[in-house]
Amino acid sequence: MKQSLSFVTLGVGDLDAARRFYRDGLGWTPTLDIDEVVFFQVAPGVVLALWGADDLAGDVGAGPAQHGTAVALACNVESAEEVHAAVERWRAAGGEVLKEPAPTTHFGGMQAYVADPEGFRWEIAWNPGWEVGADGTVRFA
Amino acid sequence: MKQSLSFVTLGVGDLDAARRFYRDGLGWTPTLDIDEVVFFQVAPGVVLALWGADDLAGDVGAGPAQHGTAVALACNVESAEEVHAAVERWRAAGGEVLKEPAPTTHFGGMQAYVADPEGFRWEIAWNPGWEVGADGTVRFA
Repeated sequence: MKQSLSFVTLGVGDLDAARRFYRDGLGWTPTLDIDEVVFFQVAPGVVLALWGADDLAGDVGAGPAQHGTAVALACNVESAEEVHAAVERWRAAGGEVLKEPAPTTHFGGMQAYVADPEGFRWEIAWNPGWEVGADGTVRFA
Repeated sequence: MKQSLSFVTLGVGDLDAARRFYRDGLGWTPTLDIDEVVFFQVAPGVVLALWGADDLAGDVGAGPAQHGTAVALACNVESAEEVHAAVERWRAAGGEVLKEPAPTTHFGGMQAYVADPEGFRWEIAWNPGWEVGADGTVRFA
């Protein structure tokens, strides 16, 4: 399993308030700023995403958010095969598989959700439109 | 306020189980692996930390963990003055200040905790022993 973080997604109750806070209040520059989601690059290759808590919970598809589960970390890999391999490694390590690898309509790739022994959720994703430049800048094709 | 993420800290109930899962189960290589905490570098300049939930809550000093508050993001800055400036920017943006900037015994620097409008917690820290190399590798002096 790749030792890598690509996204931290905060599942928020009021997306517009959260958007205004980070973008206008703190003065951050979005990589993507559309009705349903906001992305801020916060480290080389790493995006902080603000997304509706219900949208995030629906994407995971594993019941209501509990303690700590309004946050999802994400590890992006290079192919659909790597998604499967990462999920199998996660399962072998004793982690829970919340959503088996499946094609996603969000970004035309492959996605799975897993949870560590404490219930912290990770998305394992292959997104053919997601690129990290040599300088670490994230781009969405 | 610097648009930057330096740490994602998961407050865990069973640190040894979490350590075994990420280190031995997933095969990740720690940057630091001591009794009370484990650090894994997961992106250039970004560390995923496993820390006892009680230790994290005690460090924040702002009451028991609630929905999503078992996770703390962190933004490391370059000086004590920058900690103060970031906290003032956070306050001006309508964020809550959970812990005013104060010297910390953890790492001989300065620390504050703030929360965004949804209650997601960020540590703003100056740690003189924390270095990010030109290749993004995190080191602790």
